Amino acid sequence: MNNIKVICFDADDTLWINEPYYRDTEKQFTHLMTDYIDEKSCNDILLETEINNIKLYGYGAKSFVLSMIETALKISKHQIDSQTIEKILTLGRELINKPLQLLDGVEDVLKYFHGRYRLILATKGDLLDQERKLHKSGLESYFHHIEIMSEKAIANYKKLIAHLDVKPEEFVMIGNSVKSDILPVLELGAYAIHIPCETTWAHEHVENTQLDNQRFREIDNLLKTKEIIPAF
Amino acid sequence: MNNIKVICFDADDTLWINEPYYRDTEKQFTHLMTDYIDEKSCNDILLETEINNIKLYGYGAKSFVLSMIETALKISKHQIDSQTIEKILTLGRELINKPLQLLDGVEDVLKYFHGRYRLILATKGDLLDQERKLHKSGLESYFHHIEIMSEKAIANYKKLIAHLDVKPEEFVMIGNSVKSDILPVLELGAYAIHIPCETTWAHEHVENTQLDNQRFREIDNLLKTKEIIPAF
Repeated sequence: MNNIKVICFDADDTLWINEPYYRDTEKQFTHLMTDYIDEKSCNDILLETEINNIKLYGYGAKSFVLSMIETALKISKHQIDSQTIEKILTLGRELINKPLQLLDGVEDVLKYFHGRYRLILATKGDLLDQERKLHKSGLESYFHHIEIMSEKAIANYKKLIAHLDVKPEEFVMIGNSVKSDILPVLELGAYAIHIPCETTWAHEHVENTQLDNQRFREIDNLLKTKEIIPAF
Repeated sequence: MNNIKVICFDADDTLWINEPYYRDTEKQFTHLMTDYIDEKSCNDILLETEINNIKLYGYGAKSFVLSMIETALKISKHQIDSQTIEKILTLGRELINKPLQLLDGVEDVLKYFHGRYRLILATKGDLLDQERKLHKSGLESYFHHIEIMSEKAIANYKKLIAHLDVKPEEFVMIGNSVKSDILPVLELGAYAIHIPCETTWAHEHVENTQLDNQRFREIDNLLKTKEIIPAF
């Protein structure tokens, strides 16, 4: 018997493209820095700066821009000119204004589950970034509830599940990040479906853990959830 | 007969000090710009930049830092040195890490209403900024629900009131901004109490409207809500 009542979708790189846009912006940034440093080292310093800043700035485009500016100052030993700072601000604006591209099968899957289960969207990051993307996606009406978290931590999922008034075993999370979408949810006794994404931010990377758990599945395409979820 | 079931508090400059910290940061910023421009003109350009950027960046400390950097580039005609950009980043970090100072009577009022009404916190701005401040305040446990909005618009209040499953006439909002806390709530048929704050951001300023409304009160101290709300 299937007990699932709530299907919770991650957004970035589960419903729509996100990480490739960030990687593209990063590439343009390292290009601005070629007078000072090679691409690999530039990326490493940027990633280190971003991770150091998460506690202060959180996730999202604005944090990313501030980390790029900080990295540029660091790498150039304060020799960077203000035209380059201006270009970094422009990279940020372009990143924020990227078009929204849904991933394969998204509308099909949402239509299929809509009305049979309560559908939830749970994303982490910047409030305005995420609201803007959701609005551009045109998918708002499929969701019973939208949760934007500053961090996808166990405590936040626990609060969400309590707020929805379901038991963990009635809740399944679908997402591309083992760290953010899968491990905290399994820990709480809920179900989790992992759909790996080609481009994953280094900070989200988790060493290949053996996820030997009855409540866990890994699939390569969102459409397969149509078979898996009713069979849980 | 008193129908109020939900008391909703604004946070910044209603429960704790916020705007004076921003004004202090702004003062330090204009000081960095004295080689290029006088204080008044610097403030005007910064405000204009901030308002232009709201749609792109939203509210909060990160948006403010990005707008300061953009203003510095504009004012100096790209002559600004990178040490000054570094100093602006530092001003932002200091702003984020300011201590939290509760306003007069806050704990007293929350204790008084807790258990008699459902207490809600509704703030706008950056998710992480607001969560950080709430955590520092130690007030989390008083609130039944925390709502962080990207904008305090009528549609968002409407969604909040529906989510709480109450009627507008069972809902009262308390806040310092006529634009964000009072007008949208009155428009929906709910109650609103305005507590003006000495320092109000120019963008939040509304010309003295005659708020001739049975569901509206203006007071000078949060403690007075203890008499007003039960008498509504």
